[in-house]
Amino acid sequence: MKRLFANAMILAWEGENFRLIRNGYLGIENDSICYIGSDRPVETYDEERDFSGKLLMPGLINCHCHAAMVLLRGVGSDLPLDRWLYEEMFPVEARLTAEQISAGNALAMMEMIASGVTSFSDMYMEPETAILLNKDIGMKMNLTRVVQSFDPNERAEDSSRISESIALFESQHNAQNGKIRIDFSIHAEYTITECIVRGYVERIRPYLSKGARMHLHLSETEKEHRECIERHRLTPAQWFDSLGVFDLPTAAAYCVWVTEEDLRVMLRKGVYPIHNPSSNLKLGSGFAPIPKMLDMGLMVALGTDGAASNNNLNMFEEMHLASIIHNGYHRNPVIMTPETVLKMATIHGARLQGRNDTGSLEVGKKADIIAVHFSDRAHMLPAFDPINMLVYSAQSSDVCMTMVDGQILYENGKYLTLDTDKVLKDARCAIQSLYGIKNGFRIRRKLHGTCRSGISVHASI
Amino acid sequence: MKRLFANAMILAWEGENFRLIRNGYLGIENDSICYIGSDRPVETYDEERDFSGKLLMPGLINCHCHAAMVLLRGVGSDLPLDRWLYEEMFPVEARLTAEQISAGNALAMMEMIASGVTSFSDMYMEPETAILLNKDIGMKMNLTRVVQSFDPNERAEDSSRISESIALFESQHNAQNGKIRIDFSIHAEYTITECIVRGYVERIRPYLSKGARMHLHLSETEKEHRECIERHRLTPAQWFDSLGVFDLPTAAAYCVWVTEEDLRVMLRKGVYPIHNPSSNLKLGSGFAPIPKMLDMGLMVALGTDGAASNNNLNMFEEMHLASIIHNGYHRNPVIMTPETVLKMATIHGARLQGRNDTGSLEVGKKADIIAVHFSDRAHMLPAFDPINMLVYSAQSSDVCMTMVDGQILYENGKYLTLDTDKVLKDARCAIQSLYGIKNGFRIRRKLHGTCRSGISVHASI
Repeated sequence: MKRLFANAMILAWEGENFRLIRNGYLGIENDSICYIGSDRPVETYDEERDFSGKLLMPGLINCHCHAAMVLLRGVGSDLPLDRWLYEEMFPVEARLTAEQISAGNALAMMEMIASGVTSFSDMYMEPETAILLNKDIGMKMNLTRVVQSFDPNERAEDSSRISESIALFESQHNAQNGKIRIDFSIHAEYTITECIVRGYVERIRPYLSKGARMHLHLSETEKEHRECIERHRLTPAQWFDSLGVFDLPTAAAYCVWVTEEDLRVMLRKGVYPIHNPSSNLKLGSGFAPIPKMLDMGLMVALGTDGAASNNNLNMFEEMHLASIIHNGYHRNPVIMTPETVLKMATIHGARLQGRNDTGSLEVGKKADIIAVHFSDRAHMLPAFDPINMLVYSAQSSDVCMTMVDGQILYENGKYLTLDTDKVLKDARCAIQSLYGIKNGFRIRRKLHGTCRSGISVHASI
Repeated sequence: MKRLFANAMILAWEGENFRLIRNGYLGIENDSICYIGSDRPVETYDEERDFSGKLLMPGLINCHCHAAMVLLRGVGSDLPLDRWLYEEMFPVEARLTAEQISAGNALAMMEMIASGVTSFSDMYMEPETAILLNKDIGMKMNLTRVVQSFDPNERAEDSSRISESIALFESQHNAQNGKIRIDFSIHAEYTITECIVRGYVERIRPYLSKGARMHLHLSETEKEHRECIERHRLTPAQWFDSLGVFDLPTAAAYCVWVTEEDLRVMLRKGVYPIHNPSSNLKLGSGFAPIPKMLDMGLMVALGTDGAASNNNLNMFEEMHLASIIHNGYHRNPVIMTPETVLKMATIHGARLQGRNDTGSLEVGKKADIIAVHFSDRAHMLPAFDPINMLVYSAQSSDVCMTMVDGQILYENGKYLTLDTDKVLKDARCAIQSLYGIKNGFRIRRKLHGTCRSGISVHASI
C-alpha cells in the first residue's frame, strides 16, 4: 500500500534541523515514509490525498505521563498538597481496579490522539491494560511498572514489583511491531531505599543490551532535593548516579531543582531531562533550568505529567508554556526558540524513548505523522513562519490527522481505531464506581470544596 | 422574543461569587436575562433549546488588545526587540491603511468570537473601522484612538489626536445600543510629554460625567519603569496620578514593575490593572504582582495584548496562564484560585469597561453568554468542579456558542453575523498588499529568519 500526501506544507528534518517545504509531497509505503520533496514523485501511488492548507509534522511525543490519572482529573484540588495526597489521592488510588485503570488509559489515549500525540511514556499501575487496549488503538507507548519501597529491610531479590517489571519486559518489550516498549522505573529518591536501588540495577543490567531504559522522577520540589542531600549528602541525581542507575539510558522527569553539577553528571551519562511546565507551575514547584540544560547540550524532552496535576494531556499547551515561561523567568525574550521547543516535543522525545525510527519526517522513518490546519482559521493567519505559529498560536484542536506507523488513528474529528462512545461510557462507569457518584458531575462534598489549585500525585503511585 | 435554555450547567452570580447550578434553566427576553434557576420557569417561552452537557457562563472580556495587529502576527519574531521594532514594526505600521486595519479588525473579531470573547478593549489606529464592521458583527467593544506625543513643545490644545479622540467620543460613545464605548487613551509614559498629559486631562475632564474612561500601558518593562523614575523622580503610576490621569476611571495594562506604593495609589484611585500573561512572558517582561494586587483588593482584569506579542487572542490561554504561573513564581500552589481567574476574565473586565450590565449571569443583566462543551470530550471528564475545569483543562475550541445582547454570533463552528470567507479573503489581501507577498505563507527573507521569539509592538502605536 503506497499513499501520497500532496500539496502539503511539510516540516521535514535534515541534519539536526527542521527543513520546511512550503508545498510538497510525502509518500508513505506501508508503515514508513518513502518520499519527501517539493516535486511530485515519479512513482505511482495507490492513493493520493490533498493536504492543501495543512502542515504535516512528526507526531508529538509525551515523555512523561500517568495516563490513567485522568480519572483523578481535578479531584481534591481544593486542598494543600499534603492533605490532598493523604486524604484524597491515596484512598482513591488504593481502591483503583485494573478495570478502572483500563478505562482511564482509554480515556487518556482518546485525549492524546486528538491532540496529536503518537507516542507516550507512562508511569503507573497495571500497564498490561494499556497493552491490551493498544492492540486496537495503535499508539506507541513506553510503559513501566513503577518500583518503590519504604521497607529498609526489603531486598531487590524479593521485590515483587521488580520481578513483575522484568517479567513484563521479557514478555512485552517490542510487542505489537515495536509499538510497545517496556521501560524500568523508580518512582523517586524519596520513595525507595539504597538497598533496593542497588539490587534493582544489578537485576536489570542484563537487559541493557536488549534496550532496557530507566524512567524516574528527579528533583521536582525543593523539599525533595534538600531532604535527599540531608539523607545521603548527595543530590538526587548524584545519588542515583552513585548507585549505577544512570548506567541505563535514563529519562528524568521534572529536574526543577537540579544543580549545575547534577547537569554535568546527567550530560556525561546521557540522561534525558523531561520538562513538565504545566505541572511544575500549577503545583508551585518552580522553573526547571531548561535554557541551561539546552546550552549544555542535554537532550531535553517534554511531557504533560498526569492529568491530576495539569489538568489535561495537551502537548500544544506544554509547547506553548515551554516557549514563553523561561523568557519571562529570565527576562530574556530570545532565550527559547520555537525550533528548540518543537524538537523537545518530537525528535528529542523519540530518542528518549529509544525509538530511533521516529520523531522526525525523513525517508525511511516510520510514518508517525500529524496534520495541522493552517488555513481558514482566524488564529493561524498570517503564517509567515509555520514553526513559530505551531508553538505560539496553534491549538490542539487544529490537529486534523494523527497517524502511527502509516495507520490513521484520527482524522477530522473522527477516531478510526477507538470507539469513543464506549471509551466515554467506560470512563463514566469507572468514575462512578470509584467515587460512588451518579454521574460525572457529582461527587461527595469532601472531594471538592472551595476549589483551590495545587495538587500533586507523584508520591501516590 | 423569549428564549429558554434548558438542562444546562449554569455559572450564575450571587453576591460577589459564582453560584453553580448543576442542571438549570436560563431565560432570555430580548437582549437580557429574565430567569435563572434550577426549576423550569412557569412562564411560556417562544423557543426552547437543550443545553445538556454544556455549561453557560458569562462571555469573556478581553480587556487589553490591539486587534488589527493580527496582521502582524509573528512578523519579525526572529529579532531582538529594538531591531524588530525599528526595522520591522515601524515600517509596516507606517504604511498600514484604514482598509488593511479594517481587515485586521475583522480577522481579530472572528478569532475572538469563536473563543468566547463577547467584549474587548482595543487600543489602536482607525477605530472607526471596527465601529463600522460591528454594525453587522455585533460584539461589544471599548475603543480608543491612542494619544502619544514626542514633541516637548506640542500643546494639548493643538493635538489632533486628542481632538479626534474627543470627536469620536462625542459621536460614537454608547452607539449601537451601548455596544460601542469610546475610551480615552495614553500610549505610555515614555511616549508622551507632561505638558500634553496635563492638557489632555483638562480637555477630557468634562466628559467624565458622560462615562469617559482612560486606557494606558503601565510599567511593562523594568527599563520603562526605571527610566521614568530617572526622568520624573516618580514611577509611571505616581507620575500619571500626579498629573490627574487617575481622576478618570483608568485601565492600566501590564503593571509588571509596579511598586507596593504604586498599588496603594491605584487602589485609592480605583485603577484597574490588566494582566497580560502571554505577552509579559513571551517578551521577557516578567511576572506582574497579581496575587499582591488581588490581596490588596485591586480589581484585576485580563487581556491578550496584540497578536504580535502573544501570538493569538485566546482568553482561555490567558486564564490558564494566570492560574498557574504565579503558583510557580511564588512556589505556592494555592496562591491563585480558579474562581479568581474566572472573575478576572468576566465580571472584573465588565467593571473595567464601565459596563455594569454585563460580566455575570444574573437576572436583569444583558445576555452576553457563552456555552462550553462539558460532555463527550475526553479532556473534560470527569468534571467534579466545573470552574476548575474551565481554567485548567478547557480549550477555546470547547466554546460552542457565543451570544451578545441575546443575539447568537457563533454556534457549533458557524458564524451567524460574519462572513468568514470574506473576512479571510480580505485579511489575505491586506497581508499581501502590506508585505508584497503572493500568499499568506510567503514573505521577504528579511521579515523572517532564524526565528527567535521576543517581539513587542507597544511603542509602535
